[in-house]
Amino acid sequence: MSVHVFKLSHVSSCLSCHRLQESLLSSASGYRNYRGVLNWCVVMLVLSNARLFLENLLKYGILVDPIQVVSLFIKDPYNMPAACLVIVSNVFIVAALYTERRLSVGCFSERVGLLVHSINLSVTLCFPVTIVLMLKSITPVGGASALGVYTVLFLKLYSYKDVNKWCREMSHAKARSLARESGQDYQVSYPGNVTLRDLYYFVFAPTLCYELNFPRSPRIRMSFLLRRLFEMVSSWMIPIIQSSMKPLEVNIIPLSSLSHQVPNHLLWLIFFYWFFHSSLNFIAELLQFGDREFYRDWWNSETITYFWQNWNIPVHKWCLRHFYKPLLKSGVSKWLGQSAVFLASAFFHEYLVSVPLKMLRPWAFMGMMAQLPLAWFVARFLRGNYGNAAVWLSLIIGQPIAVLMYVHDYYVLHYREGY
Amino acid sequence: MSVHVFKLSHVSSCLSCHRLQESLLSSASGYRNYRGVLNWCVVMLVLSNARLFLENLLKYGILVDPIQVVSLFIKDPYNMPAACLVIVSNVFIVAALYTERRLSVGCFSERVGLLVHSINLSVTLCFPVTIVLMLKSITPVGGASALGVYTVLFLKLYSYKDVNKWCREMSHAKARSLARESGQDYQVSYPGNVTLRDLYYFVFAPTLCYELNFPRSPRIRMSFLLRRLFEMVSSWMIPIIQSSMKPLEVNIIPLSSLSHQVPNHLLWLIFFYWFFHSSLNFIAELLQFGDREFYRDWWNSETITYFWQNWNIPVHKWCLRHFYKPLLKSGVSKWLGQSAVFLASAFFHEYLVSVPLKMLRPWAFMGMMAQLPLAWFVARFLRGNYGNAAVWLSLIIGQPIAVLMYVHDYYVLHYREGY
Repeated sequence: MSVHVFKLSHVSSCLSCHRLQESLLSSASGYRNYRGVLNWCVVMLVLSNARLFLENLLKYGILVDPIQVVSLFIKDPYNMPAACLVIVSNVFIVAALYTERRLSVGCFSERVGLLVHSINLSVTLCFPVTIVLMLKSITPVGGASALGVYTVLFLKLYSYKDVNKWCREMSHAKARSLARESGQDYQVSYPGNVTLRDLYYFVFAPTLCYELNFPRSPRIRMSFLLRRLFEMVSSWMIPIIQSSMKPLEVNIIPLSSLSHQVPNHLLWLIFFYWFFHSSLNFIAELLQFGDREFYRDWWNSETITYFWQNWNIPVHKWCLRHFYKPLLKSGVSKWLGQSAVFLASAFFHEYLVSVPLKMLRPWAFMGMMAQLPLAWFVARFLRGNYGNAAVWLSLIIGQPIAVLMYVHDYYVLHYREGY
Repeated sequence: MSVHVFKLSHVSSCLSCHRLQESLLSSASGYRNYRGVLNWCVVMLVLSNARLFLENLLKYGILVDPIQVVSLFIKDPYNMPAACLVIVSNVFIVAALYTERRLSVGCFSERVGLLVHSINLSVTLCFPVTIVLMLKSITPVGGASALGVYTVLFLKLYSYKDVNKWCREMSHAKARSLARESGQDYQVSYPGNVTLRDLYYFVFAPTLCYELNFPRSPRIRMSFLLRRLFEMVSSWMIPIIQSSMKPLEVNIIPLSSLSHQVPNHLLWLIFFYWFFHSSLNFIAELLQFGDREFYRDWWNSETITYFWQNWNIPVHKWCLRHFYKPLLKSGVSKWLGQSAVFLASAFFHEYLVSVPLKMLRPWAFMGMMAQLPLAWFVARFLRGNYGNAAVWLSLIIGQPIAVLMYVHDYYVLHYREGY
C-alpha cells in the first residue's frame, strides 16, 4: 500500500509542475539581487578598455606619456607649490592641538579657545585660496588637490574642536564611565586623547567625524590591501588609456556634446569607485580603521534626496553631526536647517572648482541649486524604477553639463586665440 | 537627574558615531541589492541608442527600410513557405489529440498508442527539415523560425503524451481525489482534458510541460500587457537602429572580431529580455497563464552549470520532467543522465542552426561541448564574483565566436565570388 501511495504522490507531483508566480524582472516579484549585473558592467568596462588598449598598441605603439600625466599636477619639477601647500597644512593641525591642550588644562577659557579655533579654521580655508590665486605656477589639478586637502582638514579640525568641547561639557568621571567596553581593554577618555599621535591618526583616518575611540579592525588583511591597491592602480589606467585615444576636444553644439556625457559619467563612476571604495578602504585597512561605511546604496536611490544622503557618507555624517543637529538644537527649523546644509555644500562645490580654475563661474553652485526643483519633481511624480532611472539620468546628463560649462569657459579664457 | 542623563546619553551618542562595518561593495558585506545597476544599464542602452538614432537621422534621414526587414523572413510575398509550414503543423497537433482520444476510450492499446505517437513525433521533427532543405525560396531566418516552432511543438506533444499516460496509470478515482482544490472550483480530471480546446490552450501557453490544471492568473492586467507590448516593440527597434548604421561586415582576423563580440552579446541580452520576459509574459497575461517563471537569476550564476539550469526554465523543466527523471527511473546513472540531456540539447542547438543555413557545421555542437571542460574549470578554480565574471566572459566571448563561425562559413559558401 505504501509503495502505491508513494507512486501516486510521485506521479501527482509530476502532474502539477507549475505554480502561480511572477517573473523575477517584473517589479511585482520584489526580487532585487542583481550583483551579477554589476559584475557584467565591470567585465564590459575591462573588455572594452582592453580592446582600445590593444588596438592602439598595435597601431601606434605606446602613446601614454608619463610626463604628460605628471604635468597635470606640476608645471615645474623644481617648484611644487601644491605639495608645499600640503606640507604647510601641518601648521594648522598643530595650532588646533595647541589650543585644545591649553583648553584641557584650563589655560584658555572657552571663549578664548573658540576665538583661537575660529581664527585657525578661517585661515585654513582662506590661506590656500590666496596662495592658489597668487601663484601662476600652480596647475588647476594641483590647485584643486591642495584645496581638497585643506577643505578636508577644515572639516576634520572643526569636528575635533566640537568633540573636545562636548567632552569638557560632560563631567570627566561620567565620560569615563560612558567609554564603551566593547572587548577593547584600552579606552581613551577625555584629556588623554589630546595628543599629537591621536590627532594625526584622525587626520589620516578616512572619516571627517572625530571620536575618542574609533572602532578598530583586528588586523591588516594583506590580500584585502593588495586587491584595493590593484584596483587603485587599474582605475588610473582607464582614463589614461582613453585620453590617449584622441586629443581633448571642446564642443559647444548641444547634440554632439551628448556624446561626451557618457564618458564623463563613466569617469565619475570610476572616480567614485577609486576614491570611496578602493582608496578609502586601502587607507582604513592600513590604519586598522574599523568603520568602512563610506557610501550606502545610492545606486538604488529613487529620489534625488536619497542620492545626496547616501553617496558620500563621511561628508553626510559630518553635516548631520556638526552642522544640522547643532542648528536644530539652537532652535532653527528643520526646513531652514536643510537649506543651510545645502547652501554650505553648494559653497564648497564652488570653492573647490572656481578657485583652482581661477575663474568665478556660477555653474557648480547653479548645478547644486538645480537639484532642489529636480528633487521635488522626482519625488512628486516618479516612483520605484522610474524614480531610479530619473536619478541616473540626472547624473548622466546633469553632471557633465556643469563640467562642460567649466571646460568651455576655461578654454575660452586661456586659448581664446585658438578659436 | 533624568534631564542630565538624557543630555549625557545624547552627548555620548554624539561622541561615538562610528561602528565596525564593511563597505557595501566588499564581498564580505554580503550586500547584493543592485537593482539600480540594472536600471543604469537600461538608461545607458536607451541613451546611446537615442544618440545613434538622432545623429543618423540628422545626417542621413531615415535609413530603416521596412521592406528590408521583412525580406529577412520572406523572399517572395506570394510564396511564404515558412508560414505554410507553421500552418501545416496543426496536422500534428490534431493527430496527437486523435491518438489520445483513442487511447482514453480504449480503442488503442498502450502499445499501438506509443507507436502512433512515435511516428507522429518523429515526423514532426523530420518533415520541416526536408521541406527547408528542399525549398530554395525559404530564407535562413524564415527557416529557423519554422524549425523553432516545430521543435517547440515536438517538446509540447511529447509532454502531452507522457502526462496522459501517467494519468491512465493512476486509477481514475485516485486522480480525481488528487486534483488540487486550491480555491478553483472547476478542476479537470483525466479523460475530460482530452479536448481540442484544452490542447490548443497548452500549445499556445508559454510552457513546454503539459498539466491538466494550469495555475491561472485572476484577470488580464491591461497596464501590464501594454508595458510588455511596448517593450517588445522597442526591443525590435534597437537592432534595427544599430544595423542601419553600417553594412554587415565579415572579419576573420581574431582581433578585429573582438569588436563584434560586444554588440553580438548585447543583441543576445536584448533577445533574452524580448523573448523570455516581454513576449512570454505578454502571451501568459493574454492567456491568464499563472506561472511566469521563464528564467531564474542566471545573471548571478557563479558556475556554468547554474547558468544552463536557470536561463531557460521552460526547456530546463521539460528536460528534467520528461527526459532526465524517466532516465533515472529506468536505472540509468546520474552522470549518464546528465550527459544524455546535454547531448540532446547540443543536438537541438545544431538542428536549429545547421538546417536553416543549409550547411552542416559542428560549431554549435562543439560550442555546447566546450561548456563541459569550461564548467569543470570554473567550478574547480573560481568562486563568488570571480566565478560570475568567468561565466559572463564565456557568454561575451564564447557565444559570438560560434555565431561568427557560422556567419563566416555562410558568406564563404554563398558569396564566394565576393572574396
